[in-house]
Amino acid sequence: MFKKAIAASVVGLLVCAATLAAEPGRHYVPAPAPAGGGPALPFSEGVMVGGTFYVAGHIGTDPAAQGGALDADAEAHRVLDAVKHTLSEAGLSMDDLVSVTVYCTDLSLYDSFNAVYRSYFHVPYPARAFIGVNQLVRGAHFEVAGIAVKSPGAGR
Amino acid sequence: MFKKAIAASVVGLLVCAATLAAEPGRHYVPAPAPAGGGPALPFSEGVMVGGTFYVAGHIGTDPAAQGGALDADAEAHRVLDAVKHTLSEAGLSMDDLVSVTVYCTDLSLYDSFNAVYRSYFHVPYPARAFIGVNQLVRGAHFEVAGIAVKSPGAGR
Amino acid sequence: MFKKAIAASVVGLLVCAATLAAEPGRHYVPAPAPAGGGPALPFSEGVMVGGTFYVAGHIGTDPAAQGGALDADAEAHRVLDAVKHTLSEAGLSMDDLVSVTVYCTDLSLYDSFNAVYRSYFHVPYPARAFIGVNQLVRGAHFEVAGIAVKSPGAGR
Repeated sequence: MFKKAIAASVVGLLVCAATLAAEPGRHYVPAPAPAGGGPALPFSEGVMVGGTFYVAGHIGTDPAAQGGALDADAEAHRVLDAVKHTLSEAGLSMDDLVSVTVYCTDLSLYDSFNAVYRSYFHVPYPARAFIGVNQLVRGAHFEVAGIAVKSPGAGR
Repeated sequence: MFKKAIAASVVGLLVCAATLAAEPGRHYVPAPAPAGGGPALPFSEGVMVGGTFYVAGHIGTDPAAQGGALDADAEAHRVLDAVKHTLSEAGLSMDDLVSVTVYCTDLSLYDSFNAVYRSYFHVPYPARAFIGVNQLVRGAHFEVAGIAVKSPGAGR
Repeated sequence: MFKKAIAASVVGLLVCAATLAAEPGRHYVPAPAPAGGGPALPFSEGVMVGGTFYVAGHIGTDPAAQGGALDADAEAHRVLDAVKHTLSEAGLSMDDLVSVTVYCTDLSLYDSFNAVYRSYFHVPYPARAFIGVNQLVRGAHFEVAGIAVKSPGAGR
């Protein structure tokens, strides 16, 4: 019985330890270094914790186009490519997104953005909010943020 | 060979069972078909994954009021009714919301929106952000998004 | 020693049981009562559920400065202090934030806000969206919302 008590205690400790060990930890996808040098921007592109991946707001402006106007469709592709790339850094795909927020400085781009957006997803789509905002950093027309959870589907 | 078939079948069942058991469960509440036909809008009204339900941005404009102005209080009711309906499709209620974001094109509506909003909740309230934005789709004054987790309380 | 072993086992089990029993609950950090009286604002400052803490949109306007302009850097400190305080009410720190959304009415404040923001965090940073919005309640320049998950790191 003494040994049983020890055993029970050890099992109890192991269960607790397993809980700690099962803590998936967190995985950060760092923001790229600024093109012009200077301090790193104070955010990660994405953070994985407990199986949920929080995707930072991404923009799709062309770093090479110093303030020049970018075709809005090209920018839509660039921002979604950027989100896709960050997801891939965490072993995820666009299909794993469960929630997306699109901030957009010009709601007249709603339909053309949707046409591009559809090409990045399979039905059923993530939940989404589409918000007409005042201004985005670097003159972007779109900023896209989201939340992803690894889907159990095979072959993804 | 017979035994192998049985074994394969059992393995197959076990694999299926394991897949189902591991399946965190993803449930999509689809967006309604567009009133005027055309392709479905590229979002779901809500996505349930791992017990967390992501509620898309909902608006409360009146589809029957072709661009006509809608009383802002009536619109506040409509948008919250729409959120409530989507939650109910996932077996949830407003009390299960833990986080809400209200996007609003006119902050002078803050107090009147709050008066309507209170009538949809029991204390304690979800966390909330209230953001004055530039423009929303279909001329809406309000867009409401959120995150809900089934509360353990009985009788809900 | 035998009794000690039993006791250790029981304590171990109780710790596990207490952790599990505490799991399904949710913890609300209530909004402070309005300075001028009247009904409580219809939101909580934060809601903890299943180990995830949803932080409401916080602002950093000075309640004492009745509509007066506040230095934007001071306001940035105040809003981040407010978020920090809410996190602390839930036993969390800024390091536990995994996702942050900054709504800002003047994108020319981007660099100065970032300078203040960096001082509240350790690398690696949470994911973040930075959105230029039209207007915020009480004339705030910044509203900051987020999601936090207790990090497993020791000594926090």
